[in-house]
Amino acid sequence: MFESAEIGHYVSKAQYKEQVPGLREALLEAHATLVTEKKFPVVVLISGEDGAGKGETIGVLYEWMDPRYLSTLAFEEPSDEERQRPSMWRFWRALPPKGRIGIFAGSWYSDPIRLRISGKLSAMELDARAEQINRFEAMLVNEGALVLKFWIHLSKDAQRARFESLQKDPLTAWRVTPWSWERLKTYDKLKTVSSHLLRMTNTAWAPWTIVEGVDDRYRSLTVGQVIQAALASKLASKDQTSTAVAPMVRVDTDGRNVLSELDMSLCLGEKEYKAQLGKLQGRLSVLARDPRFKSRSLVVAFEGADAAGKGGAIRRITAAMDARQFQVIPVAAPTEEERAQPHLWRFWRHLPRHNHMAIFDRTWYGRVLVERVEGFCTPADWKRAYSEINDFEHDLVEDGVIVLKFWLQISQEEQLRRFKEREEIAFKRFKITAEDWRNRDKWDAYQQAICEMVERTSTGEVPWTLVESNDKNYARIKILRTLCDRLEQALDASGGKTPTTRKRAKSTKKPKT
Amino acid sequence: MFESAEIGHYVSKAQYKEQVPGLREALLEAHATLVTEKKFPVVVLISGEDGAGKGETIGVLYEWMDPRYLSTLAFEEPSDEERQRPSMWRFWRALPPKGRIGIFAGSWYSDPIRLRISGKLSAMELDARAEQINRFEAMLVNEGALVLKFWIHLSKDAQRARFESLQKDPLTAWRVTPWSWERLKTYDKLKTVSSHLLRMTNTAWAPWTIVEGVDDRYRSLTVGQVIQAALASKLASKDQTSTAVAPMVRVDTDGRNVLSELDMSLCLGEKEYKAQLGKLQGRLSVLARDPRFKSRSLVVAFEGADAAGKGGAIRRITAAMDARQFQVIPVAAPTEEERAQPHLWRFWRHLPRHNHMAIFDRTWYGRVLVERVEGFCTPADWKRAYSEINDFEHDLVEDGVIVLKFWLQISQEEQLRRFKEREEIAFKRFKITAEDWRNRDKWDAYQQAICEMVERTSTGEVPWTLVESNDKNYARIKILRTLCDRLEQALDASGGKTPTTRKRAKSTKKPKT
Repeated sequence: MFESAEIGHYVSKAQYKEQVPGLREALLEAHATLVTEKKFPVVVLISGEDGAGKGETIGVLYEWMDPRYLSTLAFEEPSDEERQRPSMWRFWRALPPKGRIGIFAGSWYSDPIRLRISGKLSAMELDARAEQINRFEAMLVNEGALVLKFWIHLSKDAQRARFESLQKDPLTAWRVTPWSWERLKTYDKLKTVSSHLLRMTNTAWAPWTIVEGVDDRYRSLTVGQVIQAALASKLASKDQTSTAVAPMVRVDTDGRNVLSELDMSLCLGEKEYKAQLGKLQGRLSVLARDPRFKSRSLVVAFEGADAAGKGGAIRRITAAMDARQFQVIPVAAPTEEERAQPHLWRFWRHLPRHNHMAIFDRTWYGRVLVERVEGFCTPADWKRAYSEINDFEHDLVEDGVIVLKFWLQISQEEQLRRFKEREEIAFKRFKITAEDWRNRDKWDAYQQAICEMVERTSTGEVPWTLVESNDKNYARIKILRTLCDRLEQALDASGGKTPTTRKRAKSTKKPKT
Repeated sequence: MFESAEIGHYVSKAQYKEQVPGLREALLEAHATLVTEKKFPVVVLISGEDGAGKGETIGVLYEWMDPRYLSTLAFEEPSDEERQRPSMWRFWRALPPKGRIGIFAGSWYSDPIRLRISGKLSAMELDARAEQINRFEAMLVNEGALVLKFWIHLSKDAQRARFESLQKDPLTAWRVTPWSWERLKTYDKLKTVSSHLLRMTNTAWAPWTIVEGVDDRYRSLTVGQVIQAALASKLASKDQTSTAVAPMVRVDTDGRNVLSELDMSLCLGEKEYKAQLGKLQGRLSVLARDPRFKSRSLVVAFEGADAAGKGGAIRRITAAMDARQFQVIPVAAPTEEERAQPHLWRFWRHLPRHNHMAIFDRTWYGRVLVERVEGFCTPADWKRAYSEINDFEHDLVEDGVIVLKFWLQISQEEQLRRFKEREEIAFKRFKITAEDWRNRDKWDAYQQAICEMVERTSTGEVPWTLVESNDKNYARIKILRTLCDRLEQALDASGGKTPTTRKRAKSTKKPKT
């Protein structure tokens, strides 16, 4: 893997002087176009061995490009706000928006490498991480990002020589610490682990560039040229790079599907409803104060046709809880800042911290429902969204978040009845819009989209709960009971501990890559 | 102060049943209009003694209004991300955007009250805090917010009775802790401190509503009615509430001002420049790694006419530093999310954490420069901005942030020369826009605005450094030297400690109000 980066690459002063002005001009030009057009974000990973010149390379990029539109993202110890959320949250919040370049000094590769070296991750677990990384980067690329990954490499001898030369110069001696020499001892392990991980994550959509680190001029010129070429090529190209989407065939020849099989006549009398409501709200209120919930968090997703009763169901949940423990997130059109990010970004930003709950009124499934049916995104976009959503929910569950999702199903007749009723009752009037009426015209298309959504995203970890909602009483009780059951089950299973298979770094040392 | 809230206010079941439906309808109507029109944010403070029914009151608001557009903001122990920033940062980041209601359970009143009770704040320091709060709330109101402050009051006897009744019911017993009884002991102190602070902060623009907490129905109905009336009235009104702005007379009869007095011929030869640049960059690099900087942060603000050399000066600073330690924030038109917040919000969100530096390329002074001259905001808006900006910088300095601001002055002739030069050199071309040419037409208006800005915002804590920038070498060296001097001075003065006069809560107990 690293062979061609150990042959002593070297650029002479004369060559460097000749090439830099042109490269710099081209880089500035491309950077300016990127900033002006705001068409895509650029994610640059600068990884590699210690002393290989990662910091210097970043410094050169700041010198050659416009520092005002560069951000360097460093990830040392996670803050407590980060520790209380899924491990990918810190990277999501740092993603550059369209038109900007984010330089990641440390990245989603740092933890897997460190944990594998220290033996806290098995070889198989490392491969599973590689697979997750590939899927994450595929999502970034499909969302339009240019992902450039650099590994600045030093041979063991070169690393030793580098530390020695840094130490000699009083201006750079501070950079060599006892911990640097420690690195030399684990050099071979790092080489084994990183070369394996690099091979596993060297994908068509986000390939690695391995750069020999010994010669400053060679290293700077190489990184600069690769960035310039990739940037110019993507700016010039009209097609968006994208990975293949797995097709799925839905067989529905007898006209039966998961929705048609629901018993829409299910209902609950007022007396029984009130009795159960009180009981379940009491149970939820106790569960929310369970000490085992202190290290967990809860995400509840509501989807359903207009007037299906999402708002009413949410109100019955929030009524049982302390308002300081939950947030309701009504999902409408994305804001300007959200549109400049991958489509899941606006949900990541609202993930609750430990001991808290987020209730989403409409969700990340909008992509495969309204955006699909109304043509707000391309077929390629919504088709790949199924697996992106599965990955998203898997990320949450793996880090101990309890995730529930409800589909509230009502019949077309019941929806019509509710629309008319709303128009008559003054203080409910505000809920009904012209758009609600329009959506009714596409009823069948929506039912198709819902069936496909359920089939492709109802996973063992996060199954869909389909709620027969023609009767509000029945629906609310079913939702509350499911919520209590699942919450209790998750807390019991964990014994208060996060049931995560994803190991997180606890070390106080700074990231290795 | 609390007398009228100790007389045993009481609403009968019949009265309550009669009044709630109408109130609820009016509240929902007003809330829906607020959400649709997105004209202003609503900040609701629910404070008061423990056991007075703050949580229950918030619960009732969730029941009566649309929970999807309510957020409850709780402030317990600051997170480490919050502790590394000025103390008001956590409130700024929690502010509701236009069209939303934010319910503050705990607020900027919590710390002053707690610290005064425990004796960590003197009476005079408490009054200084009250003054800061008044100015902060005036800013919110001037920015369009509706600020509603409730103090739910219980007499000492009522508080004891309340704890006893909560303890009797197994469903609420958990809410009474040993710490609750502790509260009874400090009741008198709290009453003294809170009644004083309430009096000091009972302003025309953000008055307090004191509500007796004993009777649930009385309390709910009162809070509901006050919110409904205020909301409806503000929705109906066309005038924005605003506080008076202090005028300032600028005497400029002899045509001399701070800008005209600058010696624009100052310059520095290439050789001397290179020698000093290297020395100063080395000094800055050492200062940035100073252990005393680990508990401080640095904000550097750059303003200047187009082509004055801000970008070049910034580049000379960043070249001396590790890219992981700074962010450059180019300030352009605010985003949609930023436009839904007070004008300073978009600067608060970029404040650096400890050991980090933020360089603003254009700043919060845009309000009194480009927005004033181009008419992007009303005269009332930019006139009050001077003191809002002074308050903002004072908040930063008081919490240990080192703040520098540079005005880069160039002559009209030099600007023209640079514009023409830029048009000729290919890789600088992207920097010049039609807007740059237009701005030249308003040169005199800008010079007036700059003089007024300097006079009104050059404070002892954060003075303006005016930089004679016709010669780039001279300007860059002056900036770097000023930066090094001020940074060194601040670190020496503190001996590594934050020189703050603002005391911050370290207690692990939850906020009192």
